[in-house]
Amino acid sequence: MSSDEKLLHGRKPGDRRVRVERPDSRYFRYARPGVVVARPAASEPRSRLGRTAITTRRAIFGQPIASAQEVEQRLPKWKALAVFSSDVMSSVAYATEASMFTLLAAGTVAFAYLMPISFLIVGLLVLVTFSYRQTIRAYPGGGGSYIVAHANLGTLPGLVAAAALLTDYVLTVAVSVSSGVFNLASAFPVLHDVTVPLIVGAILLVMTVNLRGVRESGTIFALPTYIFVVSVVILVVVGVARTALGQPPQVTGVVPIQVPVESISLLLLMRAFADGCSAMTGTEAISNGTPAFKPPEWKNAQATMVAMAVILGFVFLGISFLATTAGAVPSQTESVLSQVGRATFGQGPAWYILLISTMGILVLAAQTSFADFPRLASILARDGFMPRGFAYRGERLAFNAGIVALAVLAIAVVVAFGGRVEALIPLYAIGVFTAFTLSQAGMVRHWLSERGAGWRRSAIINGVGAVATGIVAIVFAIAKFGLGAWIIIIIVPLLVVAMLLVRREYSRGTSELAVAPDLVWGPPVHRRRVVIPVTGVQRDVIQAVRFARSITDDITALHVTDDVAAGEQLRARVERQLPGLAFVLVESPYRDLVAPLIRYLEVTAERDPDSVTVVLLPERMTRHWWERFLFNQNVHRIRAALAGREDMLVADVPYRAFEPGARRSPGGPGS
Amino acid sequence: MSSDEKLLHGRKPGDRRVRVERPDSRYFRYARPGVVVARPAASEPRSRLGRTAITTRRAIFGQPIASAQEVEQRLPKWKALAVFSSDVMSSVAYATEASMFTLLAAGTVAFAYLMPISFLIVGLLVLVTFSYRQTIRAYPGGGGSYIVAHANLGTLPGLVAAAALLTDYVLTVAVSVSSGVFNLASAFPVLHDVTVPLIVGAILLVMTVNLRGVRESGTIFALPTYIFVVSVVILVVVGVARTALGQPPQVTGVVPIQVPVESISLLLLMRAFADGCSAMTGTEAISNGTPAFKPPEWKNAQATMVAMAVILGFVFLGISFLATTAGAVPSQTESVLSQVGRATFGQGPAWYILLISTMGILVLAAQTSFADFPRLASILARDGFMPRGFAYRGERLAFNAGIVALAVLAIAVVVAFGGRVEALIPLYAIGVFTAFTLSQAGMVRHWLSERGAGWRRSAIINGVGAVATGIVAIVFAIAKFGLGAWIIIIIVPLLVVAMLLVRREYSRGTSELAVAPDLVWGPPVHRRRVVIPVTGVQRDVIQAVRFARSITDDITALHVTDDVAAGEQLRARVERQLPGLAFVLVESPYRDLVAPLIRYLEVTAERDPDSVTVVLLPERMTRHWWERFLFNQNVHRIRAALAGREDMLVADVPYRAFEPGARRSPGGPGS
Repeated sequence: MSSDEKLLHGRKPGDRRVRVERPDSRYFRYARPGVVVARPAASEPRSRLGRTAITTRRAIFGQPIASAQEVEQRLPKWKALAVFSSDVMSSVAYATEASMFTLLAAGTVAFAYLMPISFLIVGLLVLVTFSYRQTIRAYPGGGGSYIVAHANLGTLPGLVAAAALLTDYVLTVAVSVSSGVFNLASAFPVLHDVTVPLIVGAILLVMTVNLRGVRESGTIFALPTYIFVVSVVILVVVGVARTALGQPPQVTGVVPIQVPVESISLLLLMRAFADGCSAMTGTEAISNGTPAFKPPEWKNAQATMVAMAVILGFVFLGISFLATTAGAVPSQTESVLSQVGRATFGQGPAWYILLISTMGILVLAAQTSFADFPRLASILARDGFMPRGFAYRGERLAFNAGIVALAVLAIAVVVAFGGRVEALIPLYAIGVFTAFTLSQAGMVRHWLSERGAGWRRSAIINGVGAVATGIVAIVFAIAKFGLGAWIIIIIVPLLVVAMLLVRREYSRGTSELAVAPDLVWGPPVHRRRVVIPVTGVQRDVIQAVRFARSITDDITALHVTDDVAAGEQLRARVERQLPGLAFVLVESPYRDLVAPLIRYLEVTAERDPDSVTVVLLPERMTRHWWERFLFNQNVHRIRAALAGREDMLVADVPYRAFEPGARRSPGGPGS
Repeated sequence: MSSDEKLLHGRKPGDRRVRVERPDSRYFRYARPGVVVARPAASEPRSRLGRTAITTRRAIFGQPIASAQEVEQRLPKWKALAVFSSDVMSSVAYATEASMFTLLAAGTVAFAYLMPISFLIVGLLVLVTFSYRQTIRAYPGGGGSYIVAHANLGTLPGLVAAAALLTDYVLTVAVSVSSGVFNLASAFPVLHDVTVPLIVGAILLVMTVNLRGVRESGTIFALPTYIFVVSVVILVVVGVARTALGQPPQVTGVVPIQVPVESISLLLLMRAFADGCSAMTGTEAISNGTPAFKPPEWKNAQATMVAMAVILGFVFLGISFLATTAGAVPSQTESVLSQVGRATFGQGPAWYILLISTMGILVLAAQTSFADFPRLASILARDGFMPRGFAYRGERLAFNAGIVALAVLAIAVVVAFGGRVEALIPLYAIGVFTAFTLSQAGMVRHWLSERGAGWRRSAIINGVGAVATGIVAIVFAIAKFGLGAWIIIIIVPLLVVAMLLVRREYSRGTSELAVAPDLVWGPPVHRRRVVIPVTGVQRDVIQAVRFARSITDDITALHVTDDVAAGEQLRARVERQLPGLAFVLVESPYRDLVAPLIRYLEVTAERDPDSVTVVLLPERMTRHWWERFLFNQNVHRIRAALAGREDMLVADVPYRAFEPGARRSPGGPGS
C-alpha cells in the first residue's frame, strides 16, 4: 500500500487528506503526501512569558540552525586550528618550565639535559602526528581513541580510552581555566579573594560560547589564539636570530625558586621528560573532531594536524633553546616564558602582549575540551553507553548536554578543590597517553586486518607510535604514581562500569521491545468495555469518563472500599452526575485495595472473552517529584499490576489542573 | 435511578448482570445488586513465589483481620493497662535515682528534699490524671493533645502538640530500649561490643509484635509488665512494713558516684524536680488511645487511667521513701532501685526477679510509643497533615506505616548517636509537658464554649492542670536548656512546617479536583481519531495500536524527525506490519521533537472540531527510578504539554516486558 492510497483510506478521506497534507501554513510546510515540515514557529511558545524566554535565549545563544545547514557550520582550517589546538598551544606556556623545575633539583647544571629531552619530546610529537594522520584518513567520521580502540580492540579497551579522555577533558578545563585566572590574579592581587567565582564565571563563559555552536566559538576564540601563536613564533625567531647574530638574549634579575636538592638520576630525568610531555595533551583533538571540518574533511584535518604539529614543535624547541642559552631559571615571581620574552623583546609592548595573550591561551585551552568532550559523549550516547540526551543536537547544532555536563563537572572539581587545582596536574596526562596507546594499537590491528595498499608502512608507523606512547604512559605511571596518578586508576574503571551499566539497560530495553520485522498486526474486531477505578467524583475521574465515552457506552465505575456506607453515597453521586455509568462496589473487608480490584477485573474479563476490557486509571499530574509520595500511590500500583497483561488494555489518563498557557479541562458539563 | 435499574441499562443487560452480580465464588461473594465482597483469596498472590512470601508473612504477623472484627480486637482493661502504662511504669526504675543524682551535687544532706519533691510530683500526677479523665470523657474518639488542642485552640497549637509528641515518642523508643540493653550489658559484659545491634534488634522485635496488632502486643507484653509492677509493689509494701515494724532496710557497701559539688540553689531543686517529672511522660497515652478499649470505651479508659495513676503514685512515693530511709545513694555500679531491693529482700530470688523485670520494663517502655505514635500519625494523616498511607490499616488492623516509621526513626537516632543516648534524656520530657499544657488549655476552652453540666468545676480542674504543667514546661526549659533542650526548639517547628506543607499540597490537590455536586456530565456524541507518536515499530507502540484499535479505525502514527530518509523507512515498516494505520512524517529541521508534535496535533484538531483527538503515548514501564533518566524522557514531556487540554484526550499506554507471574503481551499478531 503506497502512502497515497493510505491517505485515501478511512472514513472521511477528504477530511483526512486536508488534515494531513495542508495542516497549517503558519506552523507547517506541506512537502509531499504524508510528509510535512515544521517551520520554526512550530517550536515557539505561545504564551508571552514563553516568548520572552525564547527571545532572551536566542539573544544569548543565537537563532536556531537547521540540520540541513550543518555543512555550512563546518570549520575552515584556520578556525579549526584555533579551536582544536588551543590546548596544545597553551602548554607551550608551561611545558618547558615544568621540565626545568624538575631538573633544577639537581642544580642548574642539569639544564644541560633540557635540549635532549626537548628533542625526544618533539620526536614523539612527530611520531604521534604521523600516526594520527593515518587515523584521520582511516576514520574520516571521527577517529578518536574510543572509536578506533572500540572498533579494533573491542568494547572494553574502547571504554577505557573513552573514560580516560572524558576524565582528561574535565581536568583540562578545571586546570587550564584555574591557572589562567591565577595568572590574572598574580597581576592584579585584588582579585585573589574572588578566584573561585572568577574561575566559575570563566568556565560558564566558555560554555555559553560553545552553546552558540562550534563555528561561532571558532570565530570568537580564533583571535586570542592567533595573537599568542604569532607572539611566541616572533619570540623564537627574534631570539634565535639574535643568538645567531652573536647577541643572545640574557635573562637578568631573577631569583631561582628553592627546591629540595636531588642528585641526577634516571627517575629525575624521567620525571622531567614526563613534565615536558604535558605539551602533547590535546594532540588527538583534531582526529576526534574530523567531522567538524569543511569537506573534504579528512584532507583538511590532516593539513591542520600537520600545521599544528609544526608550529608546536618549532615553538617548543625554540623556547627550550632560548631558555637554556638565555639562562632562564624557574622562579617564584616570573615564568620562564616571561623571562625569555623580557630578555628577547625588552620590557616593551611586545613583552606585554606576550604576557596577556599567555593568560588568554591558558583559559582558551579549555576550548579544545569543550570541542571534544561533547562530541565523544555524543558518540558514546549513540552507541548506548551514555544517556541518549548526549547525542541530541540543540538549536545551534551543538551537543548541548555534553557541553553543560563538562562545565558542571569542571566547576564541581574547581569548587571541591577550592580553586587549588595544581594537585590535579600530574593526573591528567596519564589518561591521554593511555588513550593514545590504545588508539595506536587499534590502528595496528586495523591495518593488519585491512591489508590495503601500503598497509605494512602504516602498521609500522602506528606500531612505533603505540610502543612509544605506551612507554610514555608507563613512565608517567612510575614517575607520577605517588603524586596522585593512582586516582585515575579508581576513576576510570568506575566510569567504565557506569557506561557498561547504561549500555546494559538500553540493550535490555531494546530487546524487550523488539518486534520481528515480518509480523503483521491486523485490525481485531472486538466489543469493548471500559472500567474506571474511582475513589470519588473528582475532575481526574471525570476526565477519565470523558475518555471512556470516546471509546464505548459500556462504562463501569469500580469502587473498592471497606466502608460500604460511604461507597453507597458515592454510588448515588456517580449515578446523579455521571448518568449511564454502571457502578460496582467491591467491599474489601481486609482493607486491601489493589489486589481485589485486579481480581475483579480478571474475573469479569474471563466471563466475557469476546470483549476487550479497557482499564482507564485517572491520574492527577503532579508538579514535583516529591508529590509522588503524596499522590497516585495506588494508581502506580494498579498500573504496575496490570501492565503487560494480554487480557486487558490499560491506560493512564492524566489530569492536570489549570496552569497558565493551558486551557482548563474538563471545563463543565457536556464538554 | 436506582442501582437495580442501572444494572438493566446497557447494550447487553443480561451479560452485564452476570458479570456484575456473580463474578466468581472463589474470589468474591455476591452481596446485593451492584455490591460484591472480596474474599481473602482475592488478596492472595497466584504465583508460587508470591504464595510462599505471603505464607511466611502471615506466620510472622498473623492472619488478616476483617474490619468488621475491629471491636473484637479491642483491649480489655488489664491488657490496656500493660500496653499504655509500660512507659509510665518504667520510669519508676529511674525517676527517683535521677532526682537523687542531681541533689547529690549538694551532698547527701540534700536528700532531705527528695520526699517534698516526690510529693510535689505525685500532686502534679493527681492533677494531670483528673484533667485527662475529663478529656477522655469529652473526646471518647481519642483525645490526644493534638485533637484537643487542634479542636479548641486552632491548627498551629494542635500541630505543635503533635510535633512535640511525635518527637517524644521517637526519643522514648530510642532511650528506653537503649537503657534496657545497657542494663543487660552491665550484667553480661560480653555484650558490650554489640549493644547497637542489640538495640536495633530489640526495636525491630517490638516493631514486629506491634505489626501483629494492638491486641496481640497487649497479650505478649502484659506478663513482663505485670511481673515488674507486682515486684515493685511488693518491694514497697515489704519495705514500708519493715520500717513500720522498726526494722528498716539498710543499704550497705555502695560507693557513691563522684559529681561536681554545687551549693543548694533554686535551680538545683528545679532540676531535681524536672528529673523526677520524667516519671510522668506517657500519662497521656491512655487518653490518646481511648478507641483501643472495649466498649464503653471512655469508662474503661477512665478506670484504667485511675488505676495507672494510683499504682504509679504509690510505687514512686514508696521507692523515694525507702531510698531516703535505707540510705541509698546513686552509684556507678548499682542502681538505686537495686540497692533498695537488695536491702529489702536480701540477695535472694526476689531481688533477681526485680532486676530482670526492670530490664524488661525498660525495653517495653517503647511499647507505649508504638501504641500511640501510629495512632497519632493516622489522625494527622486523616486530617491531611501526613501522607495518606499513615491512615491505612494493614491486614492486622495495625497502622503499619506509623509502626515502621517509628522503628526506622528510632533506629536512626540510636545509630546516629552510636547507642549513647543518655544525652537525649533531657530533651524528651519538655515536649511532653508542652503537649500536656496545650491539651489542658484546649480543654479549658472546650468547657468555656460548651458550658454543659458542671462545666465550671471541669474548667477549673483543667485550668489548674494547664497552669501546673505549663509551669513544669517552663521549669524544664530553664533547667535543661543548656543541656540540649534547645534542640527541640529547632525540631518541632521544622516538623510543624513540614506538616503544613503536606496539608497545603493535599488541599490544593483536593480543590483542583473538586467538582460541584450538581453538575451532570452526559454522554457526548463524537467521532474519534487516535494519534500515536511513534519512534519505531516496537512492542510498546504495538500495545498502543492495540489500544487504539479498541477505540476507532481512524488511527494515525505520527513520526517527528530531522532524518527524513529514516522516517520513510519507518513508514514502509508501519505500512507493512500495522496495516490500516495512516503514517504522517513531520520533518523538524531544527531537531525539536516535542513542540512540533504538539502543534501538529493542535492544528489537525482545530481543522476537525467535530471529532475528538485521542493521543496515546506508548510508554515502556521502567523497573527502577533511575531508569527514568534513560527512558521515556519525551513521553513525559509530551504528556506534561498535553495534559489539561480541553481539545484532546491523552493517555499513557504502559507496556511491560515479560515478568514472572504476568502474561506476555502483546503475544503475537492478531492478539
